[in-house]
Amino acid sequence: MAGQLNPDTWLSPDPQLDLGTQQGRAACTPAQAREAFRGGLNIPTAGWCAGYAQANLIIVPRDYAYDVLLFAHRNPKPCPLLGVLDAGETTGALLEGGDIRTDVPAYTIYRDGELAETVTDIRDWWRDDLVTLIVGCSFTFEASLVDAGVPVAHINQGCNVPMYRTSIRCAEAGRMGGPLVVSMRPIPASQVADAVRISARYPAVHGAPVHIGDPAGIGIGDLARPDFGDPVDIPPGTIPVFWACGVTPQAAVMESRPPLAIGHAPGKMLITDARDSDYLVP
Amino acid sequence: MAGQLNPDTWLSPDPQLDLGTQQGRAACTPAQAREAFRGGLNIPTAGWCAGYAQANLIIVPRDYAYDVLLFAHRNPKPCPLLGVLDAGETTGALLEGGDIRTDVPAYTIYRDGELAETVTDIRDWWRDDLVTLIVGCSFTFEASLVDAGVPVAHINQGCNVPMYRTSIRCAEAGRMGGPLVVSMRPIPASQVADAVRISARYPAVHGAPVHIGDPAGIGIGDLARPDFGDPVDIPPGTIPVFWACGVTPQAAVMESRPPLAIGHAPGKMLITDARDSDYLVP
Repeated sequence: MAGQLNPDTWLSPDPQLDLGTQQGRAACTPAQAREAFRGGLNIPTAGWCAGYAQANLIIVPRDYAYDVLLFAHRNPKPCPLLGVLDAGETTGALLEGGDIRTDVPAYTIYRDGELAETVTDIRDWWRDDLVTLIVGCSFTFEASLVDAGVPVAHINQGCNVPMYRTSIRCAEAGRMGGPLVVSMRPIPASQVADAVRISARYPAVHGAPVHIGDPAGIGIGDLARPDFGDPVDIPPGTIPVFWACGVTPQAAVMESRPPLAIGHAPGKMLITDARDSDYLVP
Repeated sequence: MAGQLNPDTWLSPDPQLDLGTQQGRAACTPAQAREAFRGGLNIPTAGWCAGYAQANLIIVPRDYAYDVLLFAHRNPKPCPLLGVLDAGETTGALLEGGDIRTDVPAYTIYRDGELAETVTDIRDWWRDDLVTLIVGCSFTFEASLVDAGVPVAHINQGCNVPMYRTSIRCAEAGRMGGPLVVSMRPIPASQVADAVRISARYPAVHGAPVHIGDPAGIGIGDLARPDFGDPVDIPPGTIPVFWACGVTPQAAVMESRPPLAIGHAPGKMLITDARDSDYLVP
């Protein structure tokens, strides 16, 4: 397995492209980004490949795949499916020429629902019966929020988005069940309506918020202690706005305990060849 | 099995409701309509239960259900999934208090991909491993077309919508593959753009057209000879507009030949408790 490279000194295979700068990361193509991650670069993908859709991963044995596919269908807000590879298949239209086993910065390995390891390459775990489900990510609508002047705290604060397990139960499917996981962005009260309107136009990447204000109402006791990602400062005059999150299938895996499941490490996404605009509805 | 009742003399269980009239059919609730069909009434459902979503059915053994579910995911325009019942389950949120085995006017039974029989009740065929997939239907956006003054020929001509097998292949999924089936509505050239704009707002019920004009371009030789449904007159000045059709999974079943599959008889749909407006995007 490739080791973790230092992102500050890591050299892109394309000498024209400086992936050490924010500008270089935003300008590179999805294929270049996947090549960098394949080479061992292990950093969060926020801000990479402007205009291209990033995605969550959930990989399970074929025996479990029907339950996960049905779970995704029954819970479309947290689990909007962008693609499903055939059992054993390691590439597809969303990652032309890529390899799902190496092209994500880091992966989480679950054995019987327990997080066993975080790795940068899953070729040692690969089996011909593994099915990869590619799930939409809210990074897609964040670019539109920023374009519309809606501040996105975790981007401005340079950290990962905070994510929380809620008291809302997902609809079950076979052996798959678990809590809805949400991401949270504190939005100025005067711009909450804009955030709703804009994100609603991206139903394939979580769409409109599931809950606005009142964290206790969905079982979140302390916004400063997210279950995944990083806490963000909540500026005065902002309202916490909660969107369904693509980490939800990983929470369901922890509860449902399939013998093996693999996810992306939160915030370290698959960068796909699809454009953000592909998921915009009229 | 219940016999076919004569719709002209059939008496509703609710004496207030005259299901012999177009007005009575439009005004009745989905539960009343399902009760009528459960009693043996066998007629097309166009015009029934104004404002409520009608749906296509595809029922397959659990062994085949993953392939069908994946086929639906990979072909969302012809197969927008509104719901999936658990194996053996005969009711659900889309048909509160109903029974999927009796509540559709007529069903098609396929054995090894051959249409074996058309029946009004599938209790004799029911098995505990049968999975019901409920697929959106373009009747939902037709009401909006009519509201916007876009004429819908088959409604005006009092017949079933014409449907055609095309030369476009669906994305395959496991053992499931087949041609895209489309429905056709001739639309005045000045209103084609409106028809696109309005139907695009209903992505969960086939959404925007897949092809406009040029039937030969998708392998349709003669509009007067549809593969399913009825031919319609094509008024001068109209353009044939083609939408992906929920009969597509039945065409895939004919090609893929599962040992058993059950559909709705074309034009005789499941009337669900969901509102058409539930599927409207902003």
